[in-house]
Amino acid sequence: MKLHQVKSPNDIKDEMNKYFKNIKLENERVNIESALNRYLAVNVKGIVDIPDFDKSTVDGYAVKASDVYGASESIPAFLTYIGEVEMGKDTELILDYDQCVYVPTGGKLPEGCTAMVMIEHTEKIDEETIAVYKPLGEGENIIKIGEDMRKDEILLEKGRKIKSYDLGVLSAQGIWEIDVYKKPNVSIISTGDELVPPYEDIKEGQIRDINTYTIMGAIKELGGKVINTSIVKDNYQSLKEAVEKYGEISDIVIISGGSSVGVKDNTAKVLDNLGEPGVFVEGAAIKPGKPTIISYSDYTAFIGLPGHPLSSVIVFSVFGKELFNILLNKNHRDEVVVEAYCDQNIHSTPGRETYQAVKIEKRDGKNYFKPILGKSASISTIVKADGLLKMEIEEEGISKGDKRKIILI
Amino acid sequence: MKLHQVKSPNDIKDEMNKYFKNIKLENERVNIESALNRYLAVNVKGIVDIPDFDKSTVDGYAVKASDVYGASESIPAFLTYIGEVEMGKDTELILDYDQCVYVPTGGKLPEGCTAMVMIEHTEKIDEETIAVYKPLGEGENIIKIGEDMRKDEILLEKGRKIKSYDLGVLSAQGIWEIDVYKKPNVSIISTGDELVPPYEDIKEGQIRDINTYTIMGAIKELGGKVINTSIVKDNYQSLKEAVEKYGEISDIVIISGGSSVGVKDNTAKVLDNLGEPGVFVEGAAIKPGKPTIISYSDYTAFIGLPGHPLSSVIVFSVFGKELFNILLNKNHRDEVVVEAYCDQNIHSTPGRETYQAVKIEKRDGKNYFKPILGKSASISTIVKADGLLKMEIEEEGISKGDKRKIILI
Repeated sequence: MKLHQVKSPNDIKDEMNKYFKNIKLENERVNIESALNRYLAVNVKGIVDIPDFDKSTVDGYAVKASDVYGASESIPAFLTYIGEVEMGKDTELILDYDQCVYVPTGGKLPEGCTAMVMIEHTEKIDEETIAVYKPLGEGENIIKIGEDMRKDEILLEKGRKIKSYDLGVLSAQGIWEIDVYKKPNVSIISTGDELVPPYEDIKEGQIRDINTYTIMGAIKELGGKVINTSIVKDNYQSLKEAVEKYGEISDIVIISGGSSVGVKDNTAKVLDNLGEPGVFVEGAAIKPGKPTIISYSDYTAFIGLPGHPLSSVIVFSVFGKELFNILLNKNHRDEVVVEAYCDQNIHSTPGRETYQAVKIEKRDGKNYFKPILGKSASISTIVKADGLLKMEIEEEGISKGDKRKIILI
Repeated sequence: MKLHQVKSPNDIKDEMNKYFKNIKLENERVNIESALNRYLAVNVKGIVDIPDFDKSTVDGYAVKASDVYGASESIPAFLTYIGEVEMGKDTELILDYDQCVYVPTGGKLPEGCTAMVMIEHTEKIDEETIAVYKPLGEGENIIKIGEDMRKDEILLEKGRKIKSYDLGVLSAQGIWEIDVYKKPNVSIISTGDELVPPYEDIKEGQIRDINTYTIMGAIKELGGKVINTSIVKDNYQSLKEAVEKYGEISDIVIISGGSSVGVKDNTAKVLDNLGEPGVFVEGAAIKPGKPTIISYSDYTAFIGLPGHPLSSVIVFSVFGKELFNILLNKNHRDEVVVEAYCDQNIHSTPGRETYQAVKIEKRDGKNYFKPILGKSASISTIVKADGLLKMEIEEEGISKGDKRKIILI
């Protein structure tokens, strides 16, 4: 057995990147109706210019801007009406000086047109004559070829989480199917002789398995797919069998529990025996979450989380998020944070990056946060929280009035 | 046809609440593996106290705190070892003065115990004697019955969006199935003679249907289910048939397009003929998005969005969000906002609530935002944006250096 020192979260993330970047997810092709919140496995380039023809952004008349220069309510410009463009149709009309063509919003501009005058600023004098009461700049009320998107331009980058309006970019380009990363396959193992699934009755001294479900939710949010959950007894042999079985079919195996000394040792030993490099984190300078174990063998990532529900949720929000960032090659890794003022002194643990669940209150247009106190063995604590306050490894706490960023949860 | 005045977004939201609260979604029962991001249709109350027995939060010995008062490295307290509690098992051991019992993390405490000493602070002297080197406060390292959750306490409120750790609360309580609101059934109609779906070839003058997919994405994010999408020709009869057909089977019908004058009138007329109260918004004091139409008939909500892709996305982010807040009875309606400083003067349109897509940049630990300029007929604009700046109806613009809240998108 190797000996491990407690490592700082930043060092741990560096090592995670080193090992876990070897786990290559396959691509899968999905159509844009199922692409929301998936991660792009390729750069999406423009296939065509959008728009692919010069078009009007208003209902009105296509004109040469120079023809209506100086037009006003009192001295309109009179133009000869030569026809109209039908919506969704090509046009062979060519605009000469002092002529105009009716074009609806989104309609194709006739050749020779340099601006569109809105119908509100015109008057039909007779079948052949339109009066224009307003001057126009060149290019006014039109959108030119390629002004929205250009052919060959990178429109959406590899690793991007596909948002609702990205679907609009894809559909505009006529891209019906795209390559995204397959969702990482995740198995969740909860260890503990006292654990019972939520759909079974419990006996005195037993408790319901909590961590499987909180971690399952977090995995879905991060873009993973839970392919297996199981409760395993607290002994070396049971854990070994489960880890080997699920390690083989998963990209990620999460093991929660094992906060009691013997079980923690079992988890580390089992993971270390799966193959090189094995366990590279056994103890993290983070609070809660010191007994965190992280291991890599045979293209599978293993994270051993503490058993206490609140601790496991917080540890997973730090290292689980990093793991999915790496596997899905996410290019937008920002957490959503809000600024808020500390409403009462909060104690930290120097030497450990400390996370504290907080409640945010709005007063006088400012955000204030208060710690939600609760033992790490509780889970209801975090339900009442709006976010997590992160205190850096060297901090001793923060004082009332300090301004800090709160990670929203 | 009624005559409508352009209404302020706040007035519109008030009227939406008045009418749309009549749309009652049914409940459906889901198990906790499928409950993530659904909206609770009931208050979830505690069925049992959690924990339902006093338990240890460490590996160590159950003691009476008074027995180890003043214990230290040099003067340990010596206690008589009378047995151990097995994990997940009940215990009949009763602790008397000067006795101790081994209890693992999460194990049930024997009667008479008032604190747990961590094993690291003890030494086994012989089979019957344990030395304790550290004093303890009453209640230290134990979690009491009901300390996490109480029986009959409201743990999760009706209208809450179920988050990952809420699943932990449910599983802890042994609640395997819960009642959530059925997802609102939504039909999306895109109108336009020029529109072609993204999987079909286009001819000169035609464009791909964009709005169906951006709105589809937004609906999924808000908690809805898209049951139908269709492209409809720009005429009264086609629109009437589509609206009647899909209105009957949907809770919500979204109609996009109709930014050209004739089509807008068609949409309002068709919706108004569906029954009382019909159209109650025809024109919103919002930019982009003035031609917004909102209607209510026969327990169905109708929203007519402008045809320009960027406009329709922004309008839907305002009124579509409100609609889902009402239908799903959401009790957490905050948008995610970050504070940032304006990096260049931005113009607004007084008399209209103005939304501007912005890019956020971090410099020297502060956020700065710049407008992303783009015509409302473009969609790529918003892909480059991080958020939306909202300028109030009475504002004329904002100046460089002003601090504002940006709604993240």
